[in-house]
Amino acid sequence: MSATTEGFTGRIILVAELEAKPDKVSELEKVLLAIKASADSDAEPGCLTYRVSKFGTKFVIFEEYENQAAVQLHMGADTFKALVNAIPDTAVGGPKLQYYEECK
Amino acid sequence: MSATTEGFTGRIILVAELEAKPDKVSELEKVLLAIKASADSDAEPGCLTYRVSKFGTKFVIFEEYENQAAVQLHMGADTFKALVNAIPDTAVGGPKLQYYEECK
Repeated sequence: MSATTEGFTGRIILVAELEAKPDKVSELEKVLLAIKASADSDAEPGCLTYRVSKFGTKFVIFEEYENQAAVQLHMGADTFKALVNAIPDTAVGGPKLQYYEECK
Repeated sequence: MSATTEGFTGRIILVAELEAKPDKVSELEKVLLAIKASADSDAEPGCLTYRVSKFGTKFVIFEEYENQAAVQLHMGADTFKALVNAIPDTAVGGPKLQYYEECK
């Protein structure tokens, strides 16, 4: 996996992992689902898939973007900025981002 | 994430990670795409999503199942058994399996 989208030309798959502090799981889940609402909306037409899953305190988000511009748009959204602001209080460390290309 | 499906009651999300030996990437990709063909077919109605992605030698597979029985059916398929047989020759170590539940 790649840690950046550099060199990607077509669609981009992003798998993000994040661990919540034990007492902040639902708070972090709310922030992630707000991002999902934006990602699934017409505000982010280039975000094709955004699925949030959880087990215990561990979150994994499976994301698909049309191109790099769609990734940048996503990361400029207010809901994403809200995540960045919420992480110090709700998460253990930062998110682990891994970029891939889908096999067809 | 959980390493097993124990305790899961509803739909199950599985994120599998696998690393190919540098000279076996396309061979392993073929085996994984054969699994995808079965998973997407009527032979596995309870497998709702099966997406294979890759960067370099690293594969991630995002999977969704109706229930535990669907996971068992998937892992009993000939195509899955072909993966198990191919792993020693094509992969670095074994697959890392992480089970989650989707947040809605």
